[in-house]
Amino acid sequence: MTDAFASYLTEKTALIEEHLLPGLERDGVPHTLYESMKYSLMAGGKRLRPMLVLAVLEALDKPLKRGIPYAVALEMIHTYSLIHDDLPAMDDDDLRRGKPTNHKVFGEATAILAGDALLTRAFGYIAEAYMDDPEVKPETTVRLIAELGKRAGSAGMVGGQMADIEGEGKRLNLEELEYIHRHKTGDLLIAALRGGGWLAEATPAQMDALTRYGLCIGLAFQIQDDILNVEGDEAQLGKAVGSDADRQKATYPALLGLEASKERLVQLIAEAKAALAEAGLEHSALAPLADYVMNRTK
Amino acid sequence: MTDAFASYLTEKTALIEEHLLPGLERDGVPHTLYESMKYSLMAGGKRLRPMLVLAVLEALDKPLKRGIPYAVALEMIHTYSLIHDDLPAMDDDDLRRGKPTNHKVFGEATAILAGDALLTRAFGYIAEAYMDDPEVKPETTVRLIAELGKRAGSAGMVGGQMADIEGEGKRLNLEELEYIHRHKTGDLLIAALRGGGWLAEATPAQMDALTRYGLCIGLAFQIQDDILNVEGDEAQLGKAVGSDADRQKATYPALLGLEASKERLVQLIAEAKAALAEAGLEHSALAPLADYVMNRTK
Repeated sequence: MTDAFASYLTEKTALIEEHLLPGLERDGVPHTLYESMKYSLMAGGKRLRPMLVLAVLEALDKPLKRGIPYAVALEMIHTYSLIHDDLPAMDDDDLRRGKPTNHKVFGEATAILAGDALLTRAFGYIAEAYMDDPEVKPETTVRLIAELGKRAGSAGMVGGQMADIEGEGKRLNLEELEYIHRHKTGDLLIAALRGGGWLAEATPAQMDALTRYGLCIGLAFQIQDDILNVEGDEAQLGKAVGSDADRQKATYPALLGLEASKERLVQLIAEAKAALAEAGLEHSALAPLADYVMNRTK
Repeated sequence: MTDAFASYLTEKTALIEEHLLPGLERDGVPHTLYESMKYSLMAGGKRLRPMLVLAVLEALDKPLKRGIPYAVALEMIHTYSLIHDDLPAMDDDDLRRGKPTNHKVFGEATAILAGDALLTRAFGYIAEAYMDDPEVKPETTVRLIAELGKRAGSAGMVGGQMADIEGEGKRLNLEELEYIHRHKTGDLLIAALRGGGWLAEATPAQMDALTRYGLCIGLAFQIQDDILNVEGDEAQLGKAVGSDADRQKATYPALLGLEASKERLVQLIAEAKAALAEAGLEHSALAPLADYVMNRTK
């Protein structure tokens, strides 16, 4: 990673983080519920989805400010999905980013409700925030919500999580594994990119390129996740290494071996950049962001 | 209930039920997830929230058809809230409308995801369905989503459920109890009425009347729920009677006594009708719908 890109990440992360909490409602919200939502929303993380929204606006020469509400909403949805995924009935994880998971701190009932409330707020916030923004047409707001609803729902992220749970303990083939990851991880990244595209009034060719880029980095993200679960650093990851193997979870390394997984990762990042180049977006931050997905250590 | 109103309910219930399932996505949705969503969405019930949307459109001389997507979305949100409320970590109920609850049939993980997917679909469906309807302006669609996000979220329905759970085993006063019910039950009814109002281009005075009517029937609904839990018929209710007392749950009868609860119920329905009359809506189906909320036996 270049110093310039490292500064870019730091600066954009700060910009995103300062807008997250103001996106929540506070008046009339039970104290514990608010604290639980805040706990997970502000628990750090790469803020990759918001980062992608901003990068698309920047790549298409549009003001970043326009992307903030949608970026915040995506992070709310990502956060809710982590809270619910960590529940005892799901992946039953005690640690997330080195901190106790939401239900460990607030109890299961509150964790379920905090997730529900973050998901609900994501959609409401998009509608509320853009209602008062003369730069964003109501048609665009409706498109953002349709896009997010589709990518985050039963045929998208939730569908991917369902397939993941159903696949546990089974021998999956590569196609089945890619279905899981395309939806569980890829769809919300695609929602970030396409949402940025709608906000930036991207051309159909640009939308198409952004979608293909998202699909590639989504799969790449998951392969790197699997690789880190084999040979990552627990202290950096903030979670246990080797847990996938212990659970006999289907992963790329389990299916293809570690070396072939790394090759597939490199290939996907090359494909992602090729998609950018086709739409003339190869000089934007989207290019180093693809490398970042591949090279991350946490 | 008059025969005419009984026919009205039957006819409108049929109209709503025929549109529920087509509102779900099917392509690319894992089979078990779809079945779980369908199981709870089609498990019967009064369909009160969709009914209120249609009644508002009818009261304001607008085509009912315009209300269908929003009505369906509300029923999806109501259904998700029941699935999550029934979970072991929440109210831990085995029966709902005489049938095993979602997690009893599909397991907890699937029940959580089916709820998440129904909530997500509600917003996505509103956006998708009205995007293609030239009668509904994009501004109106955005308003519907803002309204629903607010009423269903952390300062609305989810907040009410949170306060309900936190209140269990505690001695609540009437104000605390009304907070719970105003939000847990009232807010989604208000979302139905105000959403109908937005779709029907109601005047501010009409919106105000619909909101007050919703607040009154929301509280009335909950008082009747509490009363039925004391002296209702298990076979008709499809769930156990006396469970609130067993759990030492704060209820109107526990706080005010049975007679005073019934008086409060009658008073609220009178207030609801007074609100209708002020906006000239007293001859619409909204009036017998208020009586229906009071007199229901299940």
